Amino acid sequence: MPPPSLGQVAAAIGRELPRLHFHYTQRDAVLYALGIGAPADPLDAAELRSVYELSPDFQVLPTFAVLFSKDLISQLLTGRIAGIQYDPMRLLHGEQELVLHRPLPPSATVSSRLRIAGIHDKGSGILIIFAVESATEAGVKLASARTSVFIRGIGGFGGQRGETVKLPPPERPPDIVHKEATLPTQALLYRLAGDANPLHADPQMAARGGYHAPILHGLCTFGFAARAIIKCCCGNDASRLRSIRARFSQHVFPGETLVTKIWSLPGGEIRFQTHSQERAAIVLSHAVAQVGE
Amino acid sequence: MPPPSLGQVAAAIGRELPRLHFHYTQRDAVLYALGIGAPADPLDAAELRSVYELSPDFQVLPTFAVLFSKDLISQLLTGRIAGIQYDPMRLLHGEQELVLHRPLPPSATVSSRLRIAGIHDKGSGILIIFAVESATEAGVKLASARTSVFIRGIGGFGGQRGETVKLPPPERPPDIVHKEATLPTQALLYRLAGDANPLHADPQMAARGGYHAPILHGLCTFGFAARAIIKCCCGNDASRLRSIRARFSQHVFPGETLVTKIWSLPGGEIRFQTHSQERAAIVLSHAVAQVGE
Repeated sequence: MPPPSLGQVAAAIGRELPRLHFHYTQRDAVLYALGIGAPADPLDAAELRSVYELSPDFQVLPTFAVLFSKDLISQLLTGRIAGIQYDPMRLLHGEQELVLHRPLPPSATVSSRLRIAGIHDKGSGILIIFAVESATEAGVKLASARTSVFIRGIGGFGGQRGETVKLPPPERPPDIVHKEATLPTQALLYRLAGDANPLHADPQMAARGGYHAPILHGLCTFGFAARAIIKCCCGNDASRLRSIRARFSQHVFPGETLVTKIWSLPGGEIRFQTHSQERAAIVLSHAVAQVGE
Repeated sequence: MPPPSLGQVAAAIGRELPRLHFHYTQRDAVLYALGIGAPADPLDAAELRSVYELSPDFQVLPTFAVLFSKDLISQLLTGRIAGIQYDPMRLLHGEQELVLHRPLPPSATVSSRLRIAGIHDKGSGILIIFAVESATEAGVKLASARTSVFIRGIGGFGGQRGETVKLPPPERPPDIVHKEATLPTQALLYRLAGDANPLHADPQMAARGGYHAPILHGLCTFGFAARAIIKCCCGNDASRLRSIRARFSQHVFPGETLVTKIWSLPGGEIRFQTHSQERAAIVLSHAVAQVGE
């Protein structure tokens, strides 16, 4: 498939896409929490509060908000967005950023504005950046997100390269190292809550994507990392996680153990890196979170 | 709470309860399959067919049919059924029998007739037997079930003791022994598909029921046993399982390994027993299944 023309790209940048609607109940939030590995210990009340809807202090895990724009994935899998065409099998989730404006309600109907914030020509491919603003139907702002997807093979059209944000960890050992195993069935479970892309279930589809087995959703790994930060830096109070971002630098296979290295900086800033223990690979990089009181 | 009177019992036996309605989609069937431990190996196509809705040979696991009457559980938890009152915390699932009339469709709206087939006075408590006949809205018979619940403490009212069906395994070593670990989060997962009784999630509620931790749903163990039979005796073709019944003789804690001992008898009859490996306890007894071609 040829790269887009400069005119096509110019017409796409800044374009508003149709609003997305997402309704959820406590049960959906619980399924998501189980999908991202909660609870590590089912007898630990601190984690039970995100998977047991009758908990007196039930909480929706903040990264659940990435699902508010989950219909964007179905749109992207059609191979055409805002007039730009591509092979959907060459699409990768590049980076995810999420800012929480308030704790997520236990159930809600959410409406999201979706805009193409930028399209960068990386040579080997293009990076499309989506900005998502999500609010309840009553207009209460819940979350802002930036999702960037990288499409291999259609770069080199003469567009702007764009800045690359670098957020390396400090040059010292991490303050905290948190390990947690994913389940061999983690992707099958996550896809019920999140993204049903066959790449995460079907060995044949995974092979077509160049993997020897179905891979875990990047946003599932992202959820594990967020849980590690909530546990280690927020005293298990999910409402203290104000923002989180990460680059999906490598895939994870379900069943691997995720090792999240955490550095605390002044002012509640957290830098982190998540590794696959089995393959000694960095799977989340340039990763930062903000923690409040 | 006092035992019911003979008159109350006589009035309840044979009584039809309001019809139950149950709608399900493939996604519900997949969640149930994950809830009962499928797939043991996510790369095994034979098991993937019950958790991956795009499988060319997708199959709904037959024991999913126990959920057709899941609203009966909510009714039972009110502490009153057909004029008989009791403490719902003293209620136990006694036995479950399920006969499949055909493979379950990938999605359906099911209507179930529910009748009290018997009430037995066991001295230490009473046994109430429910007969359930489930069909699609178009009238296609799907499954027949018998569910018996035992209520401790309100026996001795002078009623009939009833027969006790004994289905011991043959006096020889089992033909097949199948082991499978449950997840520490198995009950939290199963309750999303099946039965949301707090006993299976909340340590405090479990303590009130006399357990040091939340216990696994009997019907979850039942599902693991059915999967063992489908794998070992049906070549992974779920449609060959025609019926299955078992007595819930002991509880299981999530995380324990279930060992199912299987004996094949002539004519496709299967006898089985399921044990908790960790506590060397028989958890499903007087258990039998019928397997077809």
